[in-house]
Amino acid sequence: MNMEFTDSTPEEIDAILQKAQAAFMIYKNADGKSKAKFLRSIADEIEALGTELVTTAMRETNLPEARIVGERGRTTGHCRMFADLVEDGSWVDARIDTAIADRMPAPKPDIRKMLVPIGPIVVFGAANFPLAYSTAGGDTISALAAGCPVIVKAHPAHPATSNLVAKAIDRAAQKSGMTENVFQHAHGKNFEVGKALVEHPLTKGVGFTGSLAGGKALFDLAQRRPEPIPVFAEMSSINPVILLPDSLSQQAEKTAEMLAASITLGVGQFCTNPGLILAIDNHALDLFIASLSKRIEASGVGTMLHEGIATNYVAKLKQSLTQRGVKLEGKSSAVSENVAGMPAVASVTTSDFLTNELLTEEVFGPYSLVVKCKDRHELLRVINHLKGQLTSSVIGQENEVAQNSDLLELLQEKAGRLIINGVPTGVEVCPSMQHGGPYPSTTDSRFTSVGVDAIKRFVRPVSFQNFPQSLLPVELKDENPMNIWRLYNNELKK
Amino acid sequence: MNMEFTDSTPEEIDAILQKAQAAFMIYKNADGKSKAKFLRSIADEIEALGTELVTTAMRETNLPEARIVGERGRTTGHCRMFADLVEDGSWVDARIDTAIADRMPAPKPDIRKMLVPIGPIVVFGAANFPLAYSTAGGDTISALAAGCPVIVKAHPAHPATSNLVAKAIDRAAQKSGMTENVFQHAHGKNFEVGKALVEHPLTKGVGFTGSLAGGKALFDLAQRRPEPIPVFAEMSSINPVILLPDSLSQQAEKTAEMLAASITLGVGQFCTNPGLILAIDNHALDLFIASLSKRIEASGVGTMLHEGIATNYVAKLKQSLTQRGVKLEGKSSAVSENVAGMPAVASVTTSDFLTNELLTEEVFGPYSLVVKCKDRHELLRVINHLKGQLTSSVIGQENEVAQNSDLLELLQEKAGRLIINGVPTGVEVCPSMQHGGPYPSTTDSRFTSVGVDAIKRFVRPVSFQNFPQSLLPVELKDENPMNIWRLYNNELKK
Repeated sequence: MNMEFTDSTPEEIDAILQKAQAAFMIYKNADGKSKAKFLRSIADEIEALGTELVTTAMRETNLPEARIVGERGRTTGHCRMFADLVEDGSWVDARIDTAIADRMPAPKPDIRKMLVPIGPIVVFGAANFPLAYSTAGGDTISALAAGCPVIVKAHPAHPATSNLVAKAIDRAAQKSGMTENVFQHAHGKNFEVGKALVEHPLTKGVGFTGSLAGGKALFDLAQRRPEPIPVFAEMSSINPVILLPDSLSQQAEKTAEMLAASITLGVGQFCTNPGLILAIDNHALDLFIASLSKRIEASGVGTMLHEGIATNYVAKLKQSLTQRGVKLEGKSSAVSENVAGMPAVASVTTSDFLTNELLTEEVFGPYSLVVKCKDRHELLRVINHLKGQLTSSVIGQENEVAQNSDLLELLQEKAGRLIINGVPTGVEVCPSMQHGGPYPSTTDSRFTSVGVDAIKRFVRPVSFQNFPQSLLPVELKDENPMNIWRLYNNELKK
Repeated sequence: MNMEFTDSTPEEIDAILQKAQAAFMIYKNADGKSKAKFLRSIADEIEALGTELVTTAMRETNLPEARIVGERGRTTGHCRMFADLVEDGSWVDARIDTAIADRMPAPKPDIRKMLVPIGPIVVFGAANFPLAYSTAGGDTISALAAGCPVIVKAHPAHPATSNLVAKAIDRAAQKSGMTENVFQHAHGKNFEVGKALVEHPLTKGVGFTGSLAGGKALFDLAQRRPEPIPVFAEMSSINPVILLPDSLSQQAEKTAEMLAASITLGVGQFCTNPGLILAIDNHALDLFIASLSKRIEASGVGTMLHEGIATNYVAKLKQSLTQRGVKLEGKSSAVSENVAGMPAVASVTTSDFLTNELLTEEVFGPYSLVVKCKDRHELLRVINHLKGQLTSSVIGQENEVAQNSDLLELLQEKAGRLIINGVPTGVEVCPSMQHGGPYPSTTDSRFTSVGVDAIKRFVRPVSFQNFPQSLLPVELKDENPMNIWRLYNNELKK
């Protein structure tokens, strides 16, 4: 069914980047209002695709209608969020230090600084979010908001969905009078396409959401270029959930209910899926595991995004379940079918977990492993052993969490988002959201891919020294025509 | 004379990082007031070293007293600048989004975000700034301000200076009651020492100022680690200065005077030295070159930092002067001696420049190459051909610069700081300063190594979701006890 989409050739990719660079030299100067109009128009055009987009995405991803509709809302939502951000203008972090001509021993020059876009960005569509992290996903929209042209490589699992959205963006660009080629679309089932896009000298940054192997390969290519470029790859996270004993003894059932729902949500195909549960081994934990297992056994078997993901889940699940000391606690009793993701939960002791690196790796799907720790000391050892994560959650009463501040301190070193008494799934789009954590959850824990701060991935600061007013960017002119927040001689003001 | 300082062994380096990590888990929670006290105490202790520091640095670096004293002032200045920053506290970029329990279709959780330190940082002292970019240099002080322990590898050219400053920092840590091992000092003439420091799994970031070869080697090591880490290397820049024709025809002499002073300043041993001058070939340019050459010929020969740098300058200068089409225009007539940096200026045509990659590389010392462009079109081609730079300057009248906006647009893509009618030397320490540009001037153009924003290199954002007030960091508590600027439900306020 995807036969109509052929891989871009090296010549086509070169032409794409040349056009993107030409577009950049114009688009980088587009003012906030124009960019806002463009981004809002993208949202409108996506909505105008109506049911065709929904049915196409459903057909290509096996995701249910409600999920696609919800994701479409999230996508148009971030288009409008970034439109508001760039229209307001304060995001450029303007700083102004005025001259002091008679300063001794040397005069102080006038220097001003603001964020500017870095250049053409290559975005790889994600398999698990055909809309919100794909063609008009957070990477694309934040890069466009920054003033960078974007080249999207469609995810080969949903090329028709990607094409529909690409055409909507094209229409939005035309209707809002945007520079030609500010957005371009490429197809590629072969890794060579992505490689050529990342290695092209005019590419200045990369956004990616997918597997550790895929993200790391692109990161390595980008760092080995004659001119290394930033890669924002979101790759792999098992999102540990720590169950503190007092809380667990009082609400084993409730906790099991909350986690079962989170594990099976979207057939476990979320980067924030809780793949690891840590607790001290006691009667309450037994009750919790029994309850969780019962719920997992009773859960339905969902259809996964595509056959590759389903095959991978089955293989990784089998691999995990056959490791030394891993005990299957429960698995869905629903009849398995093709492309199915069967929910499962297992347990393991600390000693078997700590000596087996494989158990710290992500199993992408509705699976979670409970590590039974003998005591608090073992619990800390397990946390210390973990790699970088998008999130870490602690389930416990306020005073109990307070008594475990060392545990929270340790978790903070492992994750980008800490949650108390909540599950990791459900990524709120707001300025406070950090979606990005220490490696290998992402390649750059200093940036987020969700929320307005995602724009910071595609900019760099430039200083303007001794510029006459007439030649300064509008954001840095004395009279502050955009009425933005600026640090003016060390004082933050409008 | 450096025999007393022996290279750290791999065992010592491991012990250093273990101690740094232990220190991190305490120091990361130090409040702004404590860190400020520590940083101010470092400034005091450096001042208390008195003439011993000045004479030691002079002996080890051949720099004159006034320069060392000036650099000491800059060093204590940035200690106090970062002290003010962390005491104020607004730098953590706090964001608060409060819960909306009755939001449909799902409740909005309470999420808050702020910047937190990333962990132990390795800093490589710079040869050309024995104080301001070395042991208590901008990298060290900004990392300590962020809450990261620092390990400084002393530059082998000034180990005694480094040791004096290291002991001053130790005393400051003790006097201000700081965690043990928040600062540590290592020596190493061998590359293996730096390699071991960068590759150690507990190292979370690297600061470096030096050669392209050295910085790139450390960058590659860091990116190939099992867990890649950020490297902030400032490496190589020739800081092009573009002379526009109207201005040049009216003030060839004045421009030559300004540039001769900038080229020879500090024996040309600044990362911002103007190593390339671009102009359209006409009579005014001839006058300019004649005047510049006369001034260069009349300039004295300074003693360079150390023999390695002097030898390298002589070799690189000779290499540049023997390239096809390169014509020596003037060189200092002072008698050459050992470790001397003889100022020189040469010219080349566009065609010879564009076909010879070597001429775009830095010659570290008091040398500048004038590229004679036939016309405006050639000038743009030369700019387009350049690699990334720390700075780019344009000398021209306001209306002339305005008429060359395409030239400014192009320069912006090449540099971190744009200067009109000024020289690149002289890096003002202020919030608006961007000291960092596209590769290879630095490895990460998104960050600055000078000014308060240098702290951003050593932090990452962390979100705190659904935290009770009692467990939130002080910066994120509702009552805002530190009275810092925060983005509260999308409104910036105190």
